[in-house]
Parts: sequence; C-alpha cells; structure tokens
Amino acid sequence: MTKTINADLGEGIGLHAFGNDPELMTLIDVANVACGFHAADPHIINTTVELAAENQVKVGAHPGLPDLAGFGRRPMVLSADEVEDIVTYQVGALSAFLDRHDLRLNHIKPHGALYGMVGRDPELMAAVARVALVHGVPIFGLANTAHKTVCDELGVPFVAEIYVDLGYDAEGRLVIERAPQPGVPAEAAARITSAMTDGTIRANDGTELTVDFDSVCVHSDPANAADVVRAVRAAIDAAEEEEADSL
Amino acid sequence: MTKTINADLGEGIGLHAFGNDPELMTLIDVANVACGFHAADPHIINTTVELAAENQVKVGAHPGLPDLAGFGRRPMVLSADEVEDIVTYQVGALSAFLDRHDLRLNHIKPHGALYGMVGRDPELMAAVARVALVHGVPIFGLANTAHKTVCDELGVPFVAEIYVDLGYDAEGRLVIERAPQPGVPAEAAARITSAMTDGTIRANDGTELTVDFDSVCVHSDPANAADVVRAVRAAIDAAEEEEADSL
Amino acid sequence: MTKTINADLGEGIGLHAFGNDPELMTLIDVANVACGFHAADPHIINTTVELAAENQVKVGAHPGLPDLAGFGRRPMVLSADEVEDIVTYQVGALSAFLDRHDLRLNHIKPHGALYGMVGRDPELMAAVARVALVHGVPIFGLANTAHKTVCDELGVPFVAEIYVDLGYDAEGRLVIERAPQPGVPAEAAARITSAMTDGTIRANDGTELTVDFDSVCVHSDPANAADVVRAVRAAIDAAEEEEADSL
Amino acid sequence: MTKTINADLGEGIGLHAFGNDPELMTLIDVANVACGFHAADPHIINTTVELAAENQVKVGAHPGLPDLAGFGRRPMVLSADEVEDIVTYQVGALSAFLDRHDLRLNHIKPHGALYGMVGRDPELMAAVARVALVHGVPIFGLANTAHKTVCDELGVPFVAEIYVDLGYDAEGRLVIERAPQPGVPAEAAARITSAMTDGTIRANDGTELTVDFDSVCVHSDPANAADVVRAVRAAIDAAEEEEADSL
Repeated sequence: MTKTINADLGEGIGLHAFGNDPELMTLIDVANVACGFHAADPHIINTTVELAAENQVKVGAHPGLPDLAGFGRRPMVLSADEVEDIVTYQVGALSAFLDRHDLRLNHIKPHGALYGMVGRDPELMAAVARVALVHGVPIFGLANTAHKTVCDELGVPFVAEIYVDLGYDAEGRLVIERAPQPGVPAEAAARITSAMTDGTIRANDGTELTVDFDSVCVHSDPANAADVVRAVRAAIDAAEEEEADSL
Repeated sequence: MTKTINADLGEGIGLHAFGNDPELMTLIDVANVACGFHAADPHIINTTVELAAENQVKVGAHPGLPDLAGFGRRPMVLSADEVEDIVTYQVGALSAFLDRHDLRLNHIKPHGALYGMVGRDPELMAAVARVALVHGVPIFGLANTAHKTVCDELGVPFVAEIYVDLGYDAEGRLVIERAPQPGVPAEAAARITSAMTDGTIRANDGTELTVDFDSVCVHSDPANAADVVRAVRAAIDAAEEEEADSL
Repeated sequence: MTKTINADLGEGIGLHAFGNDPELMTLIDVANVACGFHAADPHIINTTVELAAENQVKVGAHPGLPDLAGFGRRPMVLSADEVEDIVTYQVGALSAFLDRHDLRLNHIKPHGALYGMVGRDPELMAAVARVALVHGVPIFGLANTAHKTVCDELGVPFVAEIYVDLGYDAEGRLVIERAPQPGVPAEAAARITSAMTDGTIRANDGTELTVDFDSVCVHSDPANAADVVRAVRAAIDAAEEEEADSL
Repeated sequence: MTKTINADLGEGIGLHAFGNDPELMTLIDVANVACGFHAADPHIINTTVELAAENQVKVGAHPGLPDLAGFGRRPMVLSADEVEDIVTYQVGALSAFLDRHDLRLNHIKPHGALYGMVGRDPELMAAVARVALVHGVPIFGLANTAHKTVCDELGVPFVAEIYVDLGYDAEGRLVIERAPQPGVPAEAAARITSAMTDGTIRANDGTELTVDFDSVCVHSDPANAADVVRAVRAAIDAAEEEEADSL
C-alpha cells in the first residue's frame, strides 16, 4: 500500500486567500476541505472541489469548530451531541458540492482544536464516528489517540496520519499550535524516511517514538508548502523503492 | 390530488425559540426546515428533523440569505453563482440530517428575501433550479413568478404555493414584510375556500386574482399559527368534500 | 447603601425575542446589556439602551464569548490578550449607543462562560479589569472569585453580586447551567432575606455559605422573571426596614 | 492645505492577512480601520490601532455591511435605522481601542457597498452623519454624491476623497468592483497631477471630470499598494511645490 499525502485545503474566506491550493492540488493525493466553520464559505468550497476534480484529488470533509476569528484552533467545551451536530452539518454541506461535481466523499477528518478534543475524549470521538458511519467513509486521525480506538470499536475504517510540520511530545502527542511554523523540507523528508525505514520518529525532546501510518499530512498555508510536499513525496518514493528492492 | 399544508419550521437560534414547532408538526404535511443562514443552527436542525420524522412530516430545505440579524429578509445583491453556492451548501447541510434519520429530501423552497429575489430574476432562479436537479427534488414557489417559469424550462418539478398570512398586490405579487402580522384564521380559511371553489383570491386593494395551487403555506411564528393551520385544514377538507360530492 | 437589583437584558437576536425586557426595565435598577457576541445585534442594543434611558435604569456592558448558537455559555480557551480584545470591542460598541442616548457606562459584567472563565483565572480577569480602568467603571462579579481579588489588586471598583436563580456548590461557587431553570419567587426572596439578616445562604447540598453582596442578579429569560424581581425587591425592602428599625 | 493620503487598513480576519499594513502605515497619513463587520476581528483592530499609534497615523472608523464572505461589497437593503445602528456599533467598537491607546477618532468613512449605498440615498447618509455628530468627527466621502450634500445640510465636516485605483464613469461616479485590479503607480500619479494642476481627471470613457479633493484613497490589498502610495505622494509633493513656486 503506497503512502498518500493529504493536505488541508480550501481555507480561504471570501477575498482572503489562504495557502497555495492550485499548486498543492497538483502534488497531493487527498484534500481535507474546510466546510465553513473554521474557514471557507460556499463559494470557496465550490472552487476547491472543482479544483480537486480537475486534479483527480480525493476529497474529505474537514469540519471545524464554529470560530472563524480563531481558525477553529481555540478549544471549546462541547457536548457529544453538539459535536455530532456540527460535524453532520459540515459534512453534509461539503457533500452537496461533491454531488454537484460527481465526486464522492472520501473521508472525514476533524480540524484543529476539534481534532485534538475528539482525540482526547472517546465520547466526542464517537460522535464523529457516528457521522462517518452514516456516510460510509473512513476517518483520518492519529493512531495513538481516541481517533483510532473509537473507530476500531465502532467499526469505522481508520487511516493513520503522520505530521511533518508539527512537533510531537515525549508521549507521542502532536503539539498543535495556533499559528504553526513552516515545515522544513529536508526535516520533513528525514522524518518520513525514518518513519518508513525504522518505524520511528523523534519527539521534540529527542525521545524515540514508534509510528505506523498510512498518510502524511502537510499544512497548506506556509509559503513553502509545495516544497515540503515534494520533499515528502521523494522520501516516500525512495523508501518504497528500497522496500521493493529488498523483497 | 389533496392540497397540502406547508410551514417554515426550525427557525430558532440556540436558546432562542421561534414559533411552536412541536404543535405545528402534528398539524402540517410538509416542513420547510431552516438551514442555518437566516435562522437555525446544527442542533436545532437535528431536533427539527427528528420531530418531523416522529410526525411523518415531509422535510424540504429552506435555504436563506446569510443574515441572522435580518432573518434573511433583507435583499442582498448576489450573483447567480453565489446563489447556487449558498443554496448548495444549505441543502447539503440539511440533507445530512435527513440521512441520519433515514428520511429523504422532499423539496427545496428558498426563504424570505431570497424567495423574492429568485422569483424576480430568472438567472438567480436557474441557480436554485440547478441545485434541485442535482438532488432530484421539486421546488416550492409561486406560480406567477420566475419560480415556475424557470422550473418548467429546466425540467424541475414545481409545487405551487398560496399564502394565507401575507397580502398580494394587484399584480398578484406576494407582499413580503420584515415582521409579518399574524394571520387571522377565518380570513385564511375564507381565502382557501375562495381559491378552491372559485379559483380566485383578493389582492390587498380588492383586485380579483386567479390562483392555482398545490400547497398552502402558513407562517409558524405567530402565537396563533396552529389555529390558522386548523382553519386552513378545515377549509381544504370542506372544499374537497364538496368537489367530491359534485362528481 | 441600598441593595440594587440587576438583570441581563437585550439578549434577543433580530426577530428572536428573549425575556421580557419592557416589564423588567420598570422593576430593576441596573441592566447588563448584551453586546452582540453571545446575543443581541446593533438594533436590539439601541432599543434596549433607549428603554433603559426611559426607565432611568443604569446600563452596564455585558460582553460575552463570540458564540451566538451557544449563547456564550460554552467555555473557550482564550488568551488574556484575546479576552482583553473581545471585551474592549464589545464595551466600545455598547458605549457608542450610550453616547447616542446621553447616558454613561455604569459598569462591566462579563457574561456566561466568560464570567466563569475570568472568575477562575486571574490573568484573564486582569484583562477585563484593564478595560474597566480605561473606561473608569466598576466591575460586577462574585466576591469569592478572581473577580474581586483582581479588581482589588488593580484598583478597579467592585460590586459584589448574589444570584437567586442559580445554585451554589459547597465551596460557594455558582453552578452555571446552559439553560437554567426559572427561579422560584419565594425561594429567591428567602435567600435574600437570609443573606441580609444572617449573612448566609445555603449551597445546593445544604452547606451554609457566608455572603456579602451589593446587588442581586435575576435572569431575565424565564416567563416568571418579573415575579422573581418583585419578590426579591420585597425581601430587600423588608430586610432594610428591619435593619433601620433596629438602629 | 496639504493633500493627505488615506488607505483602508486592518482588513485581515484571524489568521488571514490582507494587504501590507506594516509598510503602508509608514507611508500614509490617515488609516480607515475595519471594524469587524466586512473584515477584521477584535485582535486585528487592536494590532492595527497600535501600529497606527507607532506611526503617528490618524485613525478613522471604516464601518461596513455585516458580510464577511462578501467583504461588505454586496449591497443589502437596509433601513436608515439599521444603517445608523450598524455604524454606531462599529464606530463605538473601534473607539474603545483608540481610548486604550490614547488616540482620538479622526473621522468616519463607510466601507464598500455601504459607501455606495449611502452615497446614493440621502436618508441612509443622514444616518451615518448622525453618528458623526455624536462623535464630533468629519466624514470622508465623494464630493459629488449624497456624502457631501448631506454632511453640508447637517453641519458635519466633510473631507473629499479621490481614488487612484478605481475608475469613474462619465457622470463622475466611482465604479466599485468586488475584487478591484491593482492600481498602476504611473497612472495613479498622472491622475493626481492632473487633478491638482488642471482640476480634472478622466472617466473610464475619456470624459473630462472636474474634481476637487482633500485626500487621496489608495487600496491596501494589491501587492504593489506601497508603490502606488509612493507614486501618489511624489505627485502630490511635486504639484504642491509647483503651486508654491507660482505664488
């Protein structure tokens, strides 16, 4: 199974661009498309889905918290019902654009603070998983959190991600920042090479962490995002070639 | 074909109730459910769809302008693309709640100022009709406006409405108000009786208007909305019985 | 010093009414007016300030979290800078309506989850206090939380509140609910009588709590809010008369 | 009286930057600062006001329509009361940040579609003018519209603007676009030179228009905005020097 590259796209708001979607769409396999709560509006969703269709990129829903000014990166106290409702709403909204462009929903991946909240709280995660069951799609998330354990329990297919432009703490938890630093292409590639050949990556404090993943997530907003994607792709290709040779 | 009664429901916002949905759901045939732009939020949509399911009421999408403070009743200058995008988004959002409760989308009916805007502008109306084609559902609207002419042109099934709590001008145009007065049950019944037996109703200035309709719309927010619905139902039943007797 | 009664008013949104402001304005001394983030819009703020002016009710700003659907009752993780900025914005917005009606800002009282958040976190509370210093007004809050300690440290005048329609836990902390139950007039009066004559009230579990307060807060949205206010006023008057007699 | 240069700044939303405010603040005289309805949020307003204070740039309020996704460039049907209320709210919100940084409100300038709407409708313009009277500040606008005529009638000081990155029609009306093209520095400078030496500029169709102005407005979002400002400044300086020499 080839590792895929996914990126969070469609995060502009009206006239406010965010990231370099047209270039990234030519480079990635899977797009997590913002649904209007943490970013995006109906017109941007349509443009983004069109662009994905033109580039044969698979489209997942990237629902977030209702907080444009905070970009969905400020945790809120929500009940499981509220999580299920806001995810249902956003996944449905995106799905109608997929219908319009003859595409199918590929997966659901919670955004930002919601991603962290449901990773820590199995009841909230179950709310997201129920939406995935209704739509018959997998969830993208972290293998060492409630993302995976709840999907396994509820029979929701799960796609494990690794990040190359965020750090990990010594317990293997992703360190989510309000305004992340740009990734460094060489470091991103080195992390993927290490993860694919040794099955490990380094936490911020140097701790060796064991990882197993299906897809690499790259943030779309830094100016060098396309360079990070290219470096990651080269690292994936090299590691897979090496693995093939060794068989 | 029995005439149906439809009402605009699910128009609360968070803790702010609006209308008497639980009672009306027991009385009407079809609910036009707000989708979050002019009113409603994901939790209210879910509650409303649940209530419709319990009462075997059919559910259509009631997309509006993005204007909570104005309740979608302040016309905005939008392009046809923008109309198509905001309607796509809202219809999709509602549809996901229908999926969750094993219901199917019954129709689309634009709300408030959007209803008026697309009734006057065939290009905007075509944008709404395209969304209906994607979802394979009819549109509810006014027979003497672009609502119907555009649906006919584009092959979208059309359900003609009549209103009992809004006035009509001498040209047969609905007089849409920002905060409509409550309907009067006896007047509402009289209008339906006249429409069903003579095929005419009276404009505000007394002009006789010819009408042909499939469904009666009753606003849900006045305190006496349920009384209006009951009066309308009795008028429909009486007129249909009389018609049956005369055959 | 006579005890005052304050209430949270102006919490409608567009056509969505909330509470019985016109009657309450004739009964209370001080209104905490919503500023558009948890509830209200510019038109409602203007109407509310006008109503306060007509009734000689003092007006304070009641800034909340940016969350209409959650009515500002869902805690969010905000930095002190963000709290200072959203409070500055809302207090300024309200103040312009006071200028328009020749009134002066009386105080600032954070709303809902923000009230609880700043009561627990002195750094967030200091952010609110800095806004009060810029405007030269006191803060309304709870005497046994950071509300008071931070005001004392920073030299901001403080007005201690007591609630009659919310419970207290054994540590004297207010139990904030998403959708509070209506107050019971007789119980509200009994709490005030006890607080004014014995200086104590009962927690939900029966624990005796010592209280000292300047103002009684009554929620405006239950249908019986005016009855609660009248009962509280009678209890205040009786206790003050008794105290005067005993001198 | 030296001609000033004004620009619309602070138009980001959360993490979404818009324009190059830090460089422009070193070049302009007067900033029209977005107030949160068409763009901006409380944190961005604070940052923008701070930046203005550091650069001794005067700050006016730039209130817009409540439409983030449309950047306030989609006309809406509003009553005069609604215009007065949304302008009051936004001017107040901005003013509180000015108080915090010991600055004073310099003026009010409506944004985008609101600018156009009030320029065409004296009743709506009077609503804006009343807010200016409450705050004791002038209004920036177009000399050949209701902007000026209403200010003159109501005794509100008026500052006439000229635009260098938008076209004019043959009747001297500004052609407002949803997403304007970048200005061309040499053309901008030529327009100012012509306006200051001959008192005329050219409409899009070549018609000669008479103009009289106090301030030049430059849009902040194109990548070359700073170059346009520098070219305009050089043109102003040259024309004023020539005028001084000729005395």
